[in-house]
Amino acid sequence: MSDPVLARLQADREGIVARLVEYASAPSVSTDPAYLDGMKAARDILKARLQTAGFDAVQELEAGGHPAVYAEWLDAPDAPTFIVYGHYDVQPPDPLELWKSPPFSPEIRDGRLFGRGVSDDKGPVSIAIETLATFLAVEGRLPVNVRLLIEGEEEVGSATLGAILEKHRGLLSADAVISADGARWRADLASINTGSRGNMRLEIALRTAAKDLHSGRFGGAVRNALHEMAALLSSLHHPDGSIAIEGYTHDVAPLDDAERARIVALPFDEADFFKAIGASAHGEPGYPALEQLWHRPTIEVNGMWGGYQGAGSKTVTPAESFAKLTTRLAPGQDPARAGELIEEHLRRHCPDGVELSIDRSDSGTAAYTLPAGHPLLAAAEQALEIALGTAPVRVRTGGTLPLSDIVRRVLGLDTIMMSFSTADEDFHAPNEFFRLSAIDDGVKTWVAFLRLLANQTPENYAPFKQSR
Amino acid sequence: MSDPVLARLQADREGIVARLVEYASAPSVSTDPAYLDGMKAARDILKARLQTAGFDAVQELEAGGHPAVYAEWLDAPDAPTFIVYGHYDVQPPDPLELWKSPPFSPEIRDGRLFGRGVSDDKGPVSIAIETLATFLAVEGRLPVNVRLLIEGEEEVGSATLGAILEKHRGLLSADAVISADGARWRADLASINTGSRGNMRLEIALRTAAKDLHSGRFGGAVRNALHEMAALLSSLHHPDGSIAIEGYTHDVAPLDDAERARIVALPFDEADFFKAIGASAHGEPGYPALEQLWHRPTIEVNGMWGGYQGAGSKTVTPAESFAKLTTRLAPGQDPARAGELIEEHLRRHCPDGVELSIDRSDSGTAAYTLPAGHPLLAAAEQALEIALGTAPVRVRTGGTLPLSDIVRRVLGLDTIMMSFSTADEDFHAPNEFFRLSAIDDGVKTWVAFLRLLANQTPENYAPFKQSR
Repeated sequence: MSDPVLARLQADREGIVARLVEYASAPSVSTDPAYLDGMKAARDILKARLQTAGFDAVQELEAGGHPAVYAEWLDAPDAPTFIVYGHYDVQPPDPLELWKSPPFSPEIRDGRLFGRGVSDDKGPVSIAIETLATFLAVEGRLPVNVRLLIEGEEEVGSATLGAILEKHRGLLSADAVISADGARWRADLASINTGSRGNMRLEIALRTAAKDLHSGRFGGAVRNALHEMAALLSSLHHPDGSIAIEGYTHDVAPLDDAERARIVALPFDEADFFKAIGASAHGEPGYPALEQLWHRPTIEVNGMWGGYQGAGSKTVTPAESFAKLTTRLAPGQDPARAGELIEEHLRRHCPDGVELSIDRSDSGTAAYTLPAGHPLLAAAEQALEIALGTAPVRVRTGGTLPLSDIVRRVLGLDTIMMSFSTADEDFHAPNEFFRLSAIDDGVKTWVAFLRLLANQTPENYAPFKQSR
Repeated sequence: MSDPVLARLQADREGIVARLVEYASAPSVSTDPAYLDGMKAARDILKARLQTAGFDAVQELEAGGHPAVYAEWLDAPDAPTFIVYGHYDVQPPDPLELWKSPPFSPEIRDGRLFGRGVSDDKGPVSIAIETLATFLAVEGRLPVNVRLLIEGEEEVGSATLGAILEKHRGLLSADAVISADGARWRADLASINTGSRGNMRLEIALRTAAKDLHSGRFGGAVRNALHEMAALLSSLHHPDGSIAIEGYTHDVAPLDDAERARIVALPFDEADFFKAIGASAHGEPGYPALEQLWHRPTIEVNGMWGGYQGAGSKTVTPAESFAKLTTRLAPGQDPARAGELIEEHLRRHCPDGVELSIDRSDSGTAAYTLPAGHPLLAAAEQALEIALGTAPVRVRTGGTLPLSDIVRRVLGLDTIMMSFSTADEDFHAPNEFFRLSAIDDGVKTWVAFLRLLANQTPENYAPFKQSR
């Protein structure tokens, strides 16, 4: 006997896709002020949809940055209350010339929707909203209490999310958080995500002279800011790819033998993994790729530039150079301490005659791990098995969900990731896509998940909630 | 008793400056196709000026690249014939935001004219043209035969100058070349430039994956194209600044003790030199700055980029990175051999898993040295002493004049540099300027120089001319 809510969702698949296309057409790039109109457009679409669906208290919550969209439905007095989280902001679309269709005019090709943000995180959020809206339409109620929180700063480290939670603690009282962000590990394997790496970003600038110099008049007798940047950045890693910063991995929580054996036993073909992205394995010797990605930290240069980049050549000895860096932090690492160690290393390796500026204003996000006995984990595993016909494996992500760290710190709540994007969908790269089949898996799972959660009570969550 | 030609030039100083301002307003950037109109505008200004002055055969000479402007006056049958050389193209103006006044709206401040190309090479060329025009206006003739050749590709390595010389050998029959490009060493010391370093450019690109990757999903387990570029570029130099490419300095002509002692004895304060540009000394240990700049080679990264450069951050593991390099070549080095050595080094230092592309299509320019006994040298030294009241010292430039190498190879002629720009005038950088006092020194010297050359005959030059 089919579930009436699920049946309605399945019957309306075209409508779901059409509404996602409209939502993903809003160019909501949070990092670049040029896209402020796109940010507002995305919020307006969300608010209209939530109003129409019958949510209460639809509003924007704001604390000095991009506002979050909030809505609630709280008419299940004995059921637990969940914050359902997602984000409406997306990564910048550049390099634009590499997109096969325009990033903000989503296009379906071969069962995939291509466009910036469709996978991260507009598709997965749409699945959650469509499911909740259909419960309200078909049954006039939700199985549990829900506070929807769709933030606008996930792609810039959730800069003011902590402040929003602080400011609106009353509105955000809940038992746990269900995140529609976080990404499935693979398309071919049911999995549940139990943790993420942290991150922290910094920018560095070098100056070697008062101004750019003519390479003929001065070249060979003065420092070149690009040579210095190359030397400084290459000091961060050993040739084998391991991090060369003293003490950097000291606080990383060691993996116990059982967990390491469990990871090694996961169905995962390293050769295929690297082949799919046209890359070769590179990293700390002795660490299998999955352990490297889930349990070891990185320091990555995300952008590096200086001197002349135009057509032809320019015989200049550049006086300035720049780099943007981010790190992924492993469980056990403190973001502030990691930043200190990087800064100390850079200052120690910067020679006399080179002026080094470091912007370390980002306070970063620690890695997160969902406790193994948490009630959300059992319900999520069961829902996935009901929906997909196979028991999910427990995995982590090498990415970062600032949310889980922030809600743990501010609200004392744990987070489960219930996202239906997949890790290979080129988010943060050109030609980001979202498998439309994820909508089918997603609505099935969300319907089952919400019905299972209705069997739990707030008391089930009490042992895992921390007061700050 | 004042020279009537010089008197007329001195009386018309305002006119000379006004015509230079008009000429320098043409944005003749040769390296960027966006400036093709500016290139044409500069040629049109030159041709109109030369027609009006009474030159014959005013025309454009072209061999597939930017045309050169040519004009001649050949009515001095017993006197030698000189190619008077300059260039009308200029460096790109960026970074635009660092200019105090717009680069192509020249502005006088404190006795200096600020604008792109005013010093390199529009001011010095204007001095030569104004002097020749005034001889024609006052005396109805020039003291010697002159073939003016103002090329449009000096800032891109004089790409088709050799082809132009080949194609128009008949038009360019001469005894030697006087270059209005090359720059005086300093404003406070009379000098004559007897040689230049060569150069050669190449571009490199790295690829580490089929596409940019999410730094959370893949970071730490794959190569990052920016890390690889940093490591590769930093392998080019030792930490002390010396070149780390095996065999690279092997062919550099050693300096004899007398010449080294002469250079060391030149009035030159290294500390002041570096202080003026806000930089510190850096280079091969054991080489004084002047020897480093005049007699030692460089490899310089002029531009380096990859990944995200926009506002905020982007957590990407870039798959591509790029660099533009040029080298300055010392006397003795062959450009092709230098290119081979650089390529071999880069390929040897590029690890497996990194795809390295090298564009080495530039054939480069060898260093040049004017023979010590050349008749142009004696006349130039005497003219400078007459005009400036002090005997010039012999110096070199660390820059490159492709012309001297090319005319030596194609036409078998030597070149003297008779320029009145000065090495500190920020050519190739924002806020390029030209001292207006250089116009006074310049016209005095050019008048004396041309009168002295009238006393020489083609036979004086025969021993120095080479047939190819």
